[in-house]
Amino acid sequence: MAAMLDPLRTIRELEELRSLTGDADGAQRVAFTPTWLTARSWFRERLAGLPVETHADAAGNVWTTLPGESDRAVVIGSHIDSVPNGGWLDGCLGLMAGVEVLRRVCAEFGGRPPVTLRVVDWADEEGARFGKSLFGSAACSGNLDLDEARRLADKQGIRLPDALREVGIDFERVKESGRERASAAAYLELHIEQGPVLLDLDLPLGAVLGTFGVERHAITFRGQAAHSGSTPMNRRRDAFLAAGKMAQEIYAIAARSSGGVCTIGSCTTKPGIVTSVVEECRITLDQRHLDPAALTRMHAEAREAAARFAAEGNVEVSWERLWSIAPAPFHPELITLADEAVRETCGTSHRLPSGPLHDAAEMAMAGVPTVMLFVQSLHGISHNKIEDTRREHLELAVRALDRLAEKTIRWVAAGGSGA
Amino acid sequence: MAAMLDPLRTIRELEELRSLTGDADGAQRVAFTPTWLTARSWFRERLAGLPVETHADAAGNVWTTLPGESDRAVVIGSHIDSVPNGGWLDGCLGLMAGVEVLRRVCAEFGGRPPVTLRVVDWADEEGARFGKSLFGSAACSGNLDLDEARRLADKQGIRLPDALREVGIDFERVKESGRERASAAAYLELHIEQGPVLLDLDLPLGAVLGTFGVERHAITFRGQAAHSGSTPMNRRRDAFLAAGKMAQEIYAIAARSSGGVCTIGSCTTKPGIVTSVVEECRITLDQRHLDPAALTRMHAEAREAAARFAAEGNVEVSWERLWSIAPAPFHPELITLADEAVRETCGTSHRLPSGPLHDAAEMAMAGVPTVMLFVQSLHGISHNKIEDTRREHLELAVRALDRLAEKTIRWVAAGGSGA
Repeated sequence: MAAMLDPLRTIRELEELRSLTGDADGAQRVAFTPTWLTARSWFRERLAGLPVETHADAAGNVWTTLPGESDRAVVIGSHIDSVPNGGWLDGCLGLMAGVEVLRRVCAEFGGRPPVTLRVVDWADEEGARFGKSLFGSAACSGNLDLDEARRLADKQGIRLPDALREVGIDFERVKESGRERASAAAYLELHIEQGPVLLDLDLPLGAVLGTFGVERHAITFRGQAAHSGSTPMNRRRDAFLAAGKMAQEIYAIAARSSGGVCTIGSCTTKPGIVTSVVEECRITLDQRHLDPAALTRMHAEAREAAARFAAEGNVEVSWERLWSIAPAPFHPELITLADEAVRETCGTSHRLPSGPLHDAAEMAMAGVPTVMLFVQSLHGISHNKIEDTRREHLELAVRALDRLAEKTIRWVAAGGSGA
Repeated sequence: MAAMLDPLRTIRELEELRSLTGDADGAQRVAFTPTWLTARSWFRERLAGLPVETHADAAGNVWTTLPGESDRAVVIGSHIDSVPNGGWLDGCLGLMAGVEVLRRVCAEFGGRPPVTLRVVDWADEEGARFGKSLFGSAACSGNLDLDEARRLADKQGIRLPDALREVGIDFERVKESGRERASAAAYLELHIEQGPVLLDLDLPLGAVLGTFGVERHAITFRGQAAHSGSTPMNRRRDAFLAAGKMAQEIYAIAARSSGGVCTIGSCTTKPGIVTSVVEECRITLDQRHLDPAALTRMHAEAREAAARFAAEGNVEVSWERLWSIAPAPFHPELITLADEAVRETCGTSHRLPSGPLHDAAEMAMAGVPTVMLFVQSLHGISHNKIEDTRREHLELAVRALDRLAEKTIRWVAAGGSGA
């Protein structure tokens, strides 16, 4: 069976895709653009000669199916779209590794595996153009908020429904994609880590425990503008002072949370001039944790701290929720299988949560037993043209996904999904 | 003598000026605008019937002279220009109080006081249009940087020299205004406080010790952008964390300085998005103190702290000087006279530094013995239409300026300026 798997072919295909759809600034496969369509045509050509059926669903997700003895399906998914100036591996690595697994399974089982194997290319995972990630997988999971999505527009003012119509998708029907999910007995996804955890541990691969839940808020402190020269320090109502205290406090909150992360990503000040105490300071706070209770606690601690700092500085504080999502823990048995697959492939495994969201989170939240594999990112950096992974690690990643698929096929065939 | 002084007339005149040159948003006497010219015409009309000579100098400052037995002059100065939407007292109170003193001295000495008395209306104290304050007084003191001022432009792109030509001023000759300074033996200025110190002390008036020196800098911390979900807290190089620590540290620095103030007035972040650690954070820092050594120490402490916080967070820090000016301490003997004048007028005096700059600073730096009086500001707020002072305090202010002028005339007549 191993003889049939050719991870070097996957690497060659990824390089070919990079040449076809990237430039000096990186990958340019932004969803719903001509370059994305080019990438998808190239992807379909890669399937020629395989005994598979390929079609796009109502949300623009492309499903490739190798029918098995059972209709119950192991789904391997990822996305061919990228952010502008993106990395060469983010998304397409998982997709092309899935195709390689498909080829191996085809050969292994003479075109008829015990369960059905499907590869899905999700539409617009990145949300780069409309600011809404996981579009295709959220349509499929049923979590997509149609009223919210209907109002989205890109920088040119083009609305999402109109952009979808251009590529043949009827926005009002995208949730019909959910039909594809009915047969899914397991969902697997390989992705580059996008962080430095495996790099720091010097490990090629890890089994992912789930995706972090996110609480994303804007915090506005309001004090009083006052002349920088004539206002004694003890008379100031300094909105930036309270915000500055939050900068340190979030590190303490994250440390107490055992595994969570907190980020203040932006700060704006009004009037924002050199000669005035800051009257209004707005910061954004992004908090993430794998454990729902821990995430709730982190958020409560941030609110408590902000209220304390506001009181100390005689300023007011208000919160605005920008977005939130619950943690999506992966399936315990599939995590065990993923751990085994990694250990068998490269000797050592490591279990880690995913900070960024992935389409896998939508599948997990929809009740499909799900797990992911992460492969080491060389600089711990993603969404950037410098994103890279060692060639030998890419090879190990394809092998580990294949082992995981094999184990999962057997697990589903044995009724493992419990469905 | 007191019978001749009519502080209520000053208040009436100020109310008249407000009606003539203000609107619902406040005073609109921005220098070099038609409204400012209207105010100046109105001002000249107030001098009708007095045995004085009035002319504009090369920088557009308007000098009104009551010749005395000696050419040596006591100068009372202020400015009729305002910021847009400004307060009704900032600047014009001192000018109209000066006119009232002029009237009293005229009457008192039958038009021929022992020394010459002059009232000057400085041009463009506020710098509201071209971003450069103390234009007229800096031209007169000689401190004006012509090369810098020549390049100034307003929001419409109109250059300062062109705007000056419109009102009959030849930019290249503005420093000829310095001739007016030759005979100045003392300079006095009454101004609304623009801060809450006298308000907090419940005192109508104070004697000003001098104007703060200012160190004004931009501080930029540079770390590394990184994904808010995938980057462990201990791997972050968070530029906002270092900037946030400065927010608190400047309060400690000011407290140690005994009398100085520090302000972070603005903060900008890059990339400034909710899902990324801040790569670059730029804050502005304004530090002020009356004592040059203390100011130097405050600035050194800020640099040391910024370097420490940068090192702690593995980020880089750089400084850019935006502007600085040395402290301008006022004349010790005139401070004593001002203190006496305030005490004799309202029972209690208080000595305080000025955080904001005033034209008096230019005179002091040019070597003219100088002092100022501050009158209480009701909300501790200036450069705003809500700026106000109790009517009884305005009356006391005119009386105190008159007493100070009387004492200063005697001091100059006795050779007090040492010149």
